[in-house]
Amino acid sequence: MKDQLMKMLEEREDKMIEIRRYLHEHPELSFEEEKTAEYIADFYQDKDVDIETNAGNGHGVIVTINGGLPGKTVGLRADFDALPIKEETDVPFKSKNDGVMHACGHDGHTAYLLILADCLIQLKDQIKGTIKIIHQHAEEQPPGGAKSIVDSGKLDDLDSIFGIHLLPMAEAGTVGYHSGYSFNGRTYFKLKIQASGGHGSSPHKANDAIVAGSHFVTAAQTIVSRRVDPLAAGVVTIGSFDGKGSFNVIKDSVELEGDIRYSNDETQEVINKEFQRIVNGLEELFGVTCELTYTPDYPPLYNDPELTQFVADTLKEANDRKIKVVKEFPKMSPSDDFAYYLEKIPGSYFYIGCTPKGVKDPYFNHHPKFDIDEDALLVAAKSVGHVACSYLDVE
Amino acid sequence: MKDQLMKMLEEREDKMIEIRRYLHEHPELSFEEEKTAEYIADFYQDKDVDIETNAGNGHGVIVTINGGLPGKTVGLRADFDALPIKEETDVPFKSKNDGVMHACGHDGHTAYLLILADCLIQLKDQIKGTIKIIHQHAEEQPPGGAKSIVDSGKLDDLDSIFGIHLLPMAEAGTVGYHSGYSFNGRTYFKLKIQASGGHGSSPHKANDAIVAGSHFVTAAQTIVSRRVDPLAAGVVTIGSFDGKGSFNVIKDSVELEGDIRYSNDETQEVINKEFQRIVNGLEELFGVTCELTYTPDYPPLYNDPELTQFVADTLKEANDRKIKVVKEFPKMSPSDDFAYYLEKIPGSYFYIGCTPKGVKDPYFNHHPKFDIDEDALLVAAKSVGHVACSYLDVE
Amino acid sequence: MKDQLMKMLEEREDKMIEIRRYLHEHPELSFEEEKTAEYIADFYQDKDVDIETNAGNGHGVIVTINGGLPGKTVGLRADFDALPIKEETDVPFKSKNDGVMHACGHDGHTAYLLILADCLIQLKDQIKGTIKIIHQHAEEQPPGGAKSIVDSGKLDDLDSIFGIHLLPMAEAGTVGYHSGYSFNGRTYFKLKIQASGGHGSSPHKANDAIVAGSHFVTAAQTIVSRRVDPLAAGVVTIGSFDGKGSFNVIKDSVELEGDIRYSNDETQEVINKEFQRIVNGLEELFGVTCELTYTPDYPPLYNDPELTQFVADTLKEANDRKIKVVKEFPKMSPSDDFAYYLEKIPGSYFYIGCTPKGVKDPYFNHHPKFDIDEDALLVAAKSVGHVACSYLDVE
Amino acid sequence: MKDQLMKMLEEREDKMIEIRRYLHEHPELSFEEEKTAEYIADFYQDKDVDIETNAGNGHGVIVTINGGLPGKTVGLRADFDALPIKEETDVPFKSKNDGVMHACGHDGHTAYLLILADCLIQLKDQIKGTIKIIHQHAEEQPPGGAKSIVDSGKLDDLDSIFGIHLLPMAEAGTVGYHSGYSFNGRTYFKLKIQASGGHGSSPHKANDAIVAGSHFVTAAQTIVSRRVDPLAAGVVTIGSFDGKGSFNVIKDSVELEGDIRYSNDETQEVINKEFQRIVNGLEELFGVTCELTYTPDYPPLYNDPELTQFVADTLKEANDRKIKVVKEFPKMSPSDDFAYYLEKIPGSYFYIGCTPKGVKDPYFNHHPKFDIDEDALLVAAKSVGHVACSYLDVE
Repeated sequence: MKDQLMKMLEEREDKMIEIRRYLHEHPELSFEEEKTAEYIADFYQDKDVDIETNAGNGHGVIVTINGGLPGKTVGLRADFDALPIKEETDVPFKSKNDGVMHACGHDGHTAYLLILADCLIQLKDQIKGTIKIIHQHAEEQPPGGAKSIVDSGKLDDLDSIFGIHLLPMAEAGTVGYHSGYSFNGRTYFKLKIQASGGHGSSPHKANDAIVAGSHFVTAAQTIVSRRVDPLAAGVVTIGSFDGKGSFNVIKDSVELEGDIRYSNDETQEVINKEFQRIVNGLEELFGVTCELTYTPDYPPLYNDPELTQFVADTLKEANDRKIKVVKEFPKMSPSDDFAYYLEKIPGSYFYIGCTPKGVKDPYFNHHPKFDIDEDALLVAAKSVGHVACSYLDVE
Repeated sequence: MKDQLMKMLEEREDKMIEIRRYLHEHPELSFEEEKTAEYIADFYQDKDVDIETNAGNGHGVIVTINGGLPGKTVGLRADFDALPIKEETDVPFKSKNDGVMHACGHDGHTAYLLILADCLIQLKDQIKGTIKIIHQHAEEQPPGGAKSIVDSGKLDDLDSIFGIHLLPMAEAGTVGYHSGYSFNGRTYFKLKIQASGGHGSSPHKANDAIVAGSHFVTAAQTIVSRRVDPLAAGVVTIGSFDGKGSFNVIKDSVELEGDIRYSNDETQEVINKEFQRIVNGLEELFGVTCELTYTPDYPPLYNDPELTQFVADTLKEANDRKIKVVKEFPKMSPSDDFAYYLEKIPGSYFYIGCTPKGVKDPYFNHHPKFDIDEDALLVAAKSVGHVACSYLDVE
Repeated sequence: MKDQLMKMLEEREDKMIEIRRYLHEHPELSFEEEKTAEYIADFYQDKDVDIETNAGNGHGVIVTINGGLPGKTVGLRADFDALPIKEETDVPFKSKNDGVMHACGHDGHTAYLLILADCLIQLKDQIKGTIKIIHQHAEEQPPGGAKSIVDSGKLDDLDSIFGIHLLPMAEAGTVGYHSGYSFNGRTYFKLKIQASGGHGSSPHKANDAIVAGSHFVTAAQTIVSRRVDPLAAGVVTIGSFDGKGSFNVIKDSVELEGDIRYSNDETQEVINKEFQRIVNGLEELFGVTCELTYTPDYPPLYNDPELTQFVADTLKEANDRKIKVVKEFPKMSPSDDFAYYLEKIPGSYFYIGCTPKGVKDPYFNHHPKFDIDEDALLVAAKSVGHVACSYLDVE
Repeated sequence: MKDQLMKMLEEREDKMIEIRRYLHEHPELSFEEEKTAEYIADFYQDKDVDIETNAGNGHGVIVTINGGLPGKTVGLRADFDALPIKEETDVPFKSKNDGVMHACGHDGHTAYLLILADCLIQLKDQIKGTIKIIHQHAEEQPPGGAKSIVDSGKLDDLDSIFGIHLLPMAEAGTVGYHSGYSFNGRTYFKLKIQASGGHGSSPHKANDAIVAGSHFVTAAQTIVSRRVDPLAAGVVTIGSFDGKGSFNVIKDSVELEGDIRYSNDETQEVINKEFQRIVNGLEELFGVTCELTYTPDYPPLYNDPELTQFVADTLKEANDRKIKVVKEFPKMSPSDDFAYYLEKIPGSYFYIGCTPKGVKDPYFNHHPKFDIDEDALLVAAKSVGHVACSYLDVE
């Protein structure tokens, strides 16, 4: 069946590209992807599958392909939301929704998966087990769509889950993998320190918020220098110290904002705990009142080592002429809410190279000039196809 | 002669008030007091004195009264500039120059001194020595007028100098004095710390200006806690820490502003030196570049103890029914450029109470509702008259 | 009666010196002054007075002289303990108690007061009111003797209290006074910070006590720089940071010790509160456990301004040829438990100059070579005699 | 030839054990290994090899085996010094040199390599290329023996180098490898901060070394928190803060000691530079004088990825019944001067499991009860034999 699938995918390459371009022209922001979701649902309308729309906390679409033979259940996920970025490319299918752009490749993710799903549906009698196609909304905007879908219980029957991300750090034809923790987790914080103002000449009648804030900054350095395992990665950046005021008036309050990164769950937990501890200590130390907003975005993304090895081995052994290189990629610093699936379901999230042809220094994801080599769509479809088939023991 | 002078002053009280009201209606900002200076110069036009206009770096007017008998030379100073404050009183002679107000009593200072000078001129044959009347511009705005007048050498022949300030902290009839350091000195600073920005997740590729700024704040505390003599007064306030930025971008620069106070010259020198040292150290410590604006306003004001005692004794022994109370006032935190005269010429700057009648909590100098009891003008004229006469050994 | 008293004192000058030398030869440490107390009690044995021994928490002796006429009650206090210092002078009456020395002049205090008391007893029929002679033990060693005597209620009937201290900062014949806060208060502290140790390469498995201790030191600077009134005096010195350990082992605990000074009660209170706050904050901030020993020694000593003026005026107007100069002395940094009397009873503690004749740079109190000009004893006796008589309205 | 070699090694296992026991009984400290070096040189005395004694800065012995056929040149290294540890095991061949112990397995390293060399010498006609046997002195004591041997130029002709370390973290039969940076580098520092002392009540007359030292500690945290790449490992531990003094005396100097770790050369360089920068900044910031001893021990050890893969593949494919498990080991925190060879010559340092039989929680290297399973000697000999043969293309 695998050979058949691969052949079908090759034949449908143009359609993938066509869909991707259509989506690229009609991007929608996270949680507002109404029309995109409709487009997707329509695609499956007359096919022999179960379709669930409005999955999770938004416009998610889950399509269940019941194979003709008994077997395991595997999930394949593609996200479909776009970014609040004004497109600066010159492609003919440039965004028609001004200020919104598919600058992260989700148009490509959706396009390949629609076609792959379509082919699998056609071959479903030969499939051992079940395939759930997860078209996920709102990856770009915490709290994201993934968590709510996981929490809904709709994926409780999955044995494993796979997904890919288009990355221009390699050419089309290259597939990357990384075992274990692969993407960093991230937390946003805002800390308002309320003290009390007064005249610059009379510090004893005031309580200096700038002094308290500065001690917070110096104390917060110890989280990374003394509390985080040196072999893990943790970062605490205070990106904003808003304490502008009159030179001769003691500042009554300051507001700090920042960005916290961690490479694994343990480090996240350590930083959470120490950060809160320092905030509490500061209140006592300087007699100030702290108001802390502490918002974890997505957790660190953990690729199951065994399944990641399985992906690597499967793709190497596939001897597919479109999949030219299969290699380890380094750890990444961005975050992705695919991490939430992997907290509950073993799986692997891997990378599909897509550097535009002839480009040496490609624009990266989230850049207004971000672009892809559309050859990568077929690579994605074939790679995920190989993985799904092999996982379900379909030859 | 003293009795004669006192009698003349009492008779001219209405004129003082008239002049003060005229000046109050026509305030001019520091360094822009053209018409006020003209008014003053006109006042002396037909009198037998030497008049020097445009004294110092502005519109100062120095009037020399040569006494008929040999003796010492004494200076009497009154300032005549106004403030950029929108008057909020209901007096009938409210400022006609919108946004400018005599909110510090300089109108009264000038009014009493014009009349006192006029009377002294009339009695000058009996005067032993010389009296220099210094109508000084631009006290409110550093660098002020005083320093330039001192630097001009026009006062090099003075044996001593006296001046008064109207203060609503006591009623008209009360004269205050303070020996030694009496007003604090003050310095303004602005410190720009230039580091280099970067992404919040990659601190090693940036140089965090907020961290450097926070260490500056904590290190600067040691100036007062460890470097300043505990028996002196020193204050270093960082009133502004402008480090607002994006939460996930490492800040490339921050700007701090603040206010430094010191009760005596030695403390000023210590703070100057240590502040500069910490700025230099910070550059090395964090590899940042610092741009420091460090602007001393006026130095601490030092009243000669002997001459202050002389003022106190003279006024107590005068048994003048208008001068009801003569007492020590506490140290003051404001600054006054009278301090520059006292750096070169021994003298004393003292206080004339002027709480408006029936007011319990008077508005202080620099308040838009600042007002005075005009009885204080005669008290000022008589007090300075007593002091000048006694100093020149005129009975 | 005053003239009579002064004459008697002059005649008994040799006896004062004899007693002082005897006491100097037989010094006893604070709380161990058994024989000195016996010597004092014996002195009064056959006189017509009430004697109370073992006053307060030690060997205090209170002698009550009931005057023949009705009037106020005044206390006169002299301390009589010595110091754990090995004497290095060459006086013939050098200490016979090795390692113990009257290096603070308490021998002189006691000698003059015994003779003054004796003379007053002889004249007691002419005295209006009551005089309590307080021979106080243990001034040198907190908690001192004064507080316990005050707490015992034995002085509840006092209208005022006076005492003197011999100081070699002026010659015999000079009497010094200072109004208001005159001696600093002092507190000793020890802070043990308990964290947890570990290997230098694994900070995340330990809790670094040196880092916590260093943050304590930097945070503690803000007490003086931001919390203490700039016009008051406050000092927080961390004199010892005991954190010696192996270079490659994270320190599990450190011990800090230090010295806190304050010029008035309000400042003491501010520092107490802020210090405790910072210790509490540190526990939270770094997850450490702090053990704080915080021992106030003596409070700031406050001389009643009216009674101090009374002392100054009385001695100036006495026209006593032995009392040559009466002048203001500066604030002093040492502490004295006379402060406890003054917390409850208005009074004044003043200074008797005693620079040894011909000496330019005298050794100060507590130096092993401390010495006095014995002429100062008569000055002390006469000064306190004048003050006591005038206070009780005895001519 | 490989099979022949393996058979010979199996036959000589008893001899390895005998040698190891002899060496264990006669340990010598680093740089003092005179007799051990003699023993080694004697071993080769009558064999057809080039022997060089006193190699490097001590007792190193380099033995060159010239193969009968042309080929590459490979180095095999074993260290032979012991530690200043009093042995606490009960083995019958316990150390006879009291207070000195082979507690790091160097006795085993030397034993296996002597026998392996002997066998290779016997087979040398079949060897393609050259084998240099490096018996290295003084690994335990920086500056170590390796650097001097490398600097001597004696190994300039090596194409690659291999070595092993016995580690009780796995059983005999397990071989571990790690690609890239594998052992941390380490630096020792001592920092004396000289300020100036004074009385606790007069901070302005002193310069507080404890305050300067505490600011050093807080500033030093920023090296790891802000300067080191979060994906690398860096540690700066201040293990000792020696600032013990009198509570009421401002400390004139403090001495800090500490331990710095880094996982790669770039991180070492960053920390070196920043540490020095902070020391320089501190001098300026607080007007103190710093005396810094900064002694890098060994650099991070970098295993060539290709050669490490070669080792892993070779041993897996060997199908040797004695080599049961070949797997990746984690990064290690200790240091080894094998790092110096690898700075100049590509190679790989790998691990031979040696947990004593039946022991669950073995004592680790450097423990007085450290012990090994002697089966590991044959595993070591065979593993290094396989690697050397394969590297030289000997079947």
